[in-house]
Amino acid sequence: MQYPSKLIEEAVNEISRLPGIGKKTALRLALHLLKQEETATEGLSEALINLRKKTKYCKICHIISDTEECSCESIRKDASLLCVVEDTPDVIAIQNTSQFYGYYHVLGGIISPIEGIGPNELNIESLIERVKKSDGTIKEIVLALSPTMEGDTTAFYIAKKLKPFAVKITTIARGVPIGGELEYTDEVTLGRSIAQRLNYEVSTE
Amino acid sequence: MQYPSKLIEEAVNEISRLPGIGKKTALRLALHLLKQEETATEGLSEALINLRKKTKYCKICHIISDTEECSCESIRKDASLLCVVEDTPDVIAIQNTSQFYGYYHVLGGIISPIEGIGPNELNIESLIERVKKSDGTIKEIVLALSPTMEGDTTAFYIAKKLKPFAVKITTIARGVPIGGELEYTDEVTLGRSIAQRLNYEVSTE
Repeated sequence: MQYPSKLIEEAVNEISRLPGIGKKTALRLALHLLKQEETATEGLSEALINLRKKTKYCKICHIISDTEECSCESIRKDASLLCVVEDTPDVIAIQNTSQFYGYYHVLGGIISPIEGIGPNELNIESLIERVKKSDGTIKEIVLALSPTMEGDTTAFYIAKKLKPFAVKITTIARGVPIGGELEYTDEVTLGRSIAQRLNYEVSTE
Repeated sequence: MQYPSKLIEEAVNEISRLPGIGKKTALRLALHLLKQEETATEGLSEALINLRKKTKYCKICHIISDTEECSCESIRKDASLLCVVEDTPDVIAIQNTSQFYGYYHVLGGIISPIEGIGPNELNIESLIERVKKSDGTIKEIVLALSPTMEGDTTAFYIAKKLKPFAVKITTIARGVPIGGELEYTDEVTLGRSIAQRLNYEVSTE
């Protein structure tokens, strides 16, 4: 594509480096900014720089935070439950369900030999330390990792590392999604949801 | 959605102001930037600010340009042809076809009573001036506007304004798109492509 202006070209190149944004979308976004007030671009630009330069990670749970100690330890939650997730969006997603009242531990990624990410690149050592230090307070580790090869590998590695401690290790349920149709569910998911079938409980209320 | 950090929240809010980007995508983009080097965010931020603050519009054709006089008048093109388009992406799209060798005139929008855009908000007066000043050099005005209600209104308005001048006014062909299937073409398009049917020319080469 040929651009009528170097400035447009540079902006398009920079924007299209973002994941999932191609040159055409980048051009549309750039032209949108040109039609807005200057303050809109300034606000966006400033928010990005602030985010990148000022964001810290909590020393305890490794979640993205404004300070080095997030509110994770001060809020009254169930201290016996610790949920292990890959990254911050997972924490937000689980919080939105209002079904979990324990603490979180963000790994900051997932074991992926293809991308060269091993256990040492992740916050696994600090998870072990956290369990050790809790001195029996943490009773259950919920592994909330994606049901992929990498997720399973990571779960297996963590479970092995946690074996010496007296903690129960659980994983989120896998099965047919709510609202999903049996017919269109893939074989592996359907097979697993049959093998790991649950007792059907009739509500007596 | 609750965010673990104010900085993330602000960045998500700013990014999701862009057209077609929701909160979830904005969060993904923000987290992507956090995983990249600081220079990546600086580069993006700088490109956006430069674009917004330094971009100029050519005085003659109103295309986005780095200077107030773009190369539009210096390049050797067919000076008898002038293509009228809504905005810069249209110029890029037409240039990519390699089928047009004339000059461009960017309206900077389209007549849209709903959005409060009238002829005076657009570069129509300067188009008339340009035709007048050309003193007969411009022989044909190609109206390359979208085949929508707004596009047709704008085309009609311009055509009326240009009536006093000895210029031929043409419009880009509308019809069934190449590769499109007759069966799935909407009635209006198909109807028009039948009414405005072309002579079938057999290539004798």
